[in-house]
Amino acid sequence: MAALAADAGRAHVVGVTGAPGVGKSTTTNALVAEYRRQGRRVGVLAVDPSSPFSGGALLGDRIRMSEHAADPDVFIRSMASRGHLGGLSWAAPQALRVLDAAGCDVVLVETVGVGQSEVEVAATADTTLVLLAPGMGDGIQAAKAGILEVADVLVVNKADRDGADRTVRDLRHAVQLGDRSEPGAWRPRVVRTVATGGDGVDDVVSAVEEHRRWLGPDGLRARRVHRAAHEVEGLALATLRARVGGVGGDARLEALAADVVAGRTDPYAAADRLVESLT
Amino acid sequence: MAALAADAGRAHVVGVTGAPGVGKSTTTNALVAEYRRQGRRVGVLAVDPSSPFSGGALLGDRIRMSEHAADPDVFIRSMASRGHLGGLSWAAPQALRVLDAAGCDVVLVETVGVGQSEVEVAATADTTLVLLAPGMGDGIQAAKAGILEVADVLVVNKADRDGADRTVRDLRHAVQLGDRSEPGAWRPRVVRTVATGGDGVDDVVSAVEEHRRWLGPDGLRARRVHRAAHEVEGLALATLRARVGGVGGDARLEALAADVVAGRTDPYAAADRLVESLT
Repeated sequence: MAALAADAGRAHVVGVTGAPGVGKSTTTNALVAEYRRQGRRVGVLAVDPSSPFSGGALLGDRIRMSEHAADPDVFIRSMASRGHLGGLSWAAPQALRVLDAAGCDVVLVETVGVGQSEVEVAATADTTLVLLAPGMGDGIQAAKAGILEVADVLVVNKADRDGADRTVRDLRHAVQLGDRSEPGAWRPRVVRTVATGGDGVDDVVSAVEEHRRWLGPDGLRARRVHRAAHEVEGLALATLRARVGGVGGDARLEALAADVVAGRTDPYAAADRLVESLT
Repeated sequence: MAALAADAGRAHVVGVTGAPGVGKSTTTNALVAEYRRQGRRVGVLAVDPSSPFSGGALLGDRIRMSEHAADPDVFIRSMASRGHLGGLSWAAPQALRVLDAAGCDVVLVETVGVGQSEVEVAATADTTLVLLAPGMGDGIQAAKAGILEVADVLVVNKADRDGADRTVRDLRHAVQLGDRSEPGAWRPRVVRTVATGGDGVDDVVSAVEEHRRWLGPDGLRARRVHRAAHEVEGLALATLRARVGGVGGDARLEALAADVVAGRTDPYAAADRLVESLT
C-alpha cells in the first residue's frame, strides 16, 4: 500500500448497488463492454455477499463476466464482504487502490445492498449508481430506504417490463420532492436500461461523465478525502476492535455478556469495564 | 439500564426484516393483532430507515399501526437507525430492554434490510423472520443475500400474487440445498401470508412458537449471551470511536485522510498513527 500510494487517485470509481435481483452483475458487465468500446481500461471490484456465518461466497455471477476475462484491459476482482463492522470488506479499499494504481480509467465497484450498504458504497465511490427494477418498490419506498440521497444516478433496469414507466415517473417525482438543495446542486439522474441487451447503458455512462464534470477536481478531491477518512477510521477501529477481543480474549467479553443476560450488570457498565481494561 | 437489568429477559424477541416493499409494517401490524387475540402483551420496536445524511426519518408507516395505539397492552416505539457502525441504532437494544422489562410477552423488532442488516437482526432477536414477496428474487438470490442462514422463519408475503408458488418452492428447495446440518438442527420454516387480510399470520406465530420450543432455555440463553456480547462490544467500540474522533478532533483524521489522497502516506500507516495517539 505504501508503494502504491503515489500512483493511485487517477481512476474514476463508480459504485454499482441495489437490492438482489435488480441485475447488478448484468449491468456491470454491460458497463464494462461500453467502457471498452470507448477504449477505456476498466477495473471491476465485485464485493459479493457472503454469509458471515458460513464464511462462504456464491461467486456464480462472476461467470457472466467471462466474456471480458481474456481482455488485457479489463481487471476483475471478486471478494467476499466479511466482518460485521459494515457490508464492505475492509480489504475492498485496498483492492480498489491496486486497480487504480494499475492504470484503470474507471473502476466499477459492485455491491449488494439496500440502505446501509449503499451508504458505504457512496462513501467509497466518486459516482454512485443505484439500480432498481420495476415493481420493486415505488418512489416512497426508495426514499424510505435512503436511496435517493445516496444515488448520483438512479438506473431503472429491466425497463422493458410492466411498470417501468411508473417507476421512472415515481423516482423523478421523488427526486423533485427531495430537492431541498441550493442552485447548482446535483440532482440525481434517472436512466432506463435493459442491461441484458445493453440498451441505455451508454446513457448511464453519459450520466456518470456528467456527474464527474459536475464534481470537478475540488468535488472529486472532497469525496476522496471523505472516503480516505472513512477508510483510516475503519482501520483504526479494526485495530482497537482486535484489542477489545484481545484483552483476556473473547472469554472476558463472553463473561460480561453472561452477566448482562443474568441481570447482574447492564451493558453500559459492562462496556465501560471492557474499555477500562484496554486503555 | 442498571435499574432494569434484573427485570429484563422475559420477552421473546422476534425480528421482522426484509427488503423495502415486502410489507414489513403490515405484517408487524397483523402479528400484533394475532398476539393480542391470544391475550399476549406486545411490544413493537420499529427501527425505521433514516437517511444518515439528512438525519431525517419517514415514519409514515407507523400511522398504519394506529389501530393498536389505544390498546394498553401494546407498546410501540419508533426510532431512526443512525450511525454507520451498523443498520441498527445503538439505542435499539436499550429500547428493547425497556419493552422487555415493562412486561411484554413478545417484542417485535422491525427493520429494513437485505444482507448485513438482517445479520444484525439475527444477532438481536430470539427468532428472526425474513419477509419476501413473490417475484422479488428466487431462492438463489436469497442464498446470495445470506438470507437463508439468518432466517428462522421465511415469510412469503403477498402470497396471493402471481409467482408465490414458485417463490415458496424455490425457498424450500434452497433451504434443503443449504441443509448441511446435524440431525435435530433447525430448518427454517417457509410460511405464506397475505398480511393485509391477516391470512397465514397465525401460521407465522405457530412457527415462532415452534422455534422457541426448539431453542429451549439453553438455546435461548446462548442467543441472548451472543446478543449481549454484540451489544457490549458495540458500546465499547462506540466509546473508542468517540475517542478516535476526539484526539485532536476530526481535524486530525481529516489531515491524515488528505495525506492519503495526496499519496503522502497509505491508509494503514495513517491508521497506526491514529491509534498510537489514542493509547
